[in-house]
Amino acid sequence: MMPRWKPDAAGRLTKAAITLFEQQGYEATTVAEIAEAAGLTKRTFFRYFADKREVLFMGSEELQDLWVSSIRAAPDRAGAMEAIESALDAVAQLFAERHPFARVRARIIAANPELQERELIKLAKLADAAAGALRDRGVADRAATLAGQTGVAVFHDAFARWVQQEDPDVMRALMDGSLAELRAVVMEGRGRAARPKASALRRA
Amino acid sequence: MMPRWKPDAAGRLTKAAITLFEQQGYEATTVAEIAEAAGLTKRTFFRYFADKREVLFMGSEELQDLWVSSIRAAPDRAGAMEAIESALDAVAQLFAERHPFARVRARIIAANPELQERELIKLAKLADAAAGALRDRGVADRAATLAGQTGVAVFHDAFARWVQQEDPDVMRALMDGSLAELRAVVMEGRGRAARPKASALRRA
Repeated sequence: MMPRWKPDAAGRLTKAAITLFEQQGYEATTVAEIAEAAGLTKRTFFRYFADKREVLFMGSEELQDLWVSSIRAAPDRAGAMEAIESALDAVAQLFAERHPFARVRARIIAANPELQERELIKLAKLADAAAGALRDRGVADRAATLAGQTGVAVFHDAFARWVQQEDPDVMRALMDGSLAELRAVVMEGRGRAARPKASALRRA
Repeated sequence: MMPRWKPDAAGRLTKAAITLFEQQGYEATTVAEIAEAAGLTKRTFFRYFADKREVLFMGSEELQDLWVSSIRAAPDRAGAMEAIESALDAVAQLFAERHPFARVRARIIAANPELQERELIKLAKLADAAAGALRDRGVADRAATLAGQTGVAVFHDAFARWVQQEDPDVMRALMDGSLAELRAVVMEGRGRAARPKASALRRA
């Protein structure tokens, strides 16, 4: 797990970048300024990041790996949503340490359409990766796709609420709330009798 | 509703573009070739499309408008998912006429990562627009967000199956199948007693 700011070059560059993005805007900030603020060279910057955008997305791979490994590590008897929930547990733990960074990052992304698009693509890849990990566990194709989408929708909704408040430790509770709401929404107006039968699913 | 190929300039350009994309690949095809194949000038092309990519995405706005207007037009007493389902009805009708175009388009997009990203962004915007239309109906913020995400996940899953088979009229049935599967996945292992209560949702 990554400490908030490592005393290493990547950590210093990240901290400098985030500070400058907040102070003077993402668009207006150059790689040269980031490197200077971190007391490092541009060349060092480019050893860690392809461009300034990557500073904001360096955690994406780690996040995806955590989703996939958590789904893989779920007990054999766990169903698709149980495996997704074990990934949500792990992700909530990872993020608790990143709250200050995540809050600033969310503000920067909200102000920049290009970064928003990149964020959407990251989330879509996360859903695909989760679905792939579920398929590897033997979950049927369609169920895996929809469980992956659902898991990421819950994560995204909870994340958006989490960065807007002060307590870093509530993410898992926010996820529970999102998942409960999702269940209520899709089952709205349905009694037990209206729940789909396996035979009906196979026909479609 | 748009006929498969209008005898107008935009329709001729679209048909020419799709044919060339299939024959020689999307990357290798130029706007000049598209215009020539349609018997038109490059200038005419640019009156309709900003670039060749736009040929594949010209229906996005119409699709989003249809989602929003269908959700708005749902009966007052309809809940969030009922309103989403009325949008799915309308979308299935719209697409039935577009099956040949949609199938070719899906193959082109599947072969091109940049187009896939654009497609993902289109879908994310669709989910946001649907959520916005639900909020306008008085649906609570979180329920609206999750219903929009769910609706688009169902649409996307059904769409991917629909372009892989021959019968243009099965899209609504495929959507029903996806929605039933989604319900089964999120309610997996839950009896009636385990369904979330409104009081629990308000706490979260």
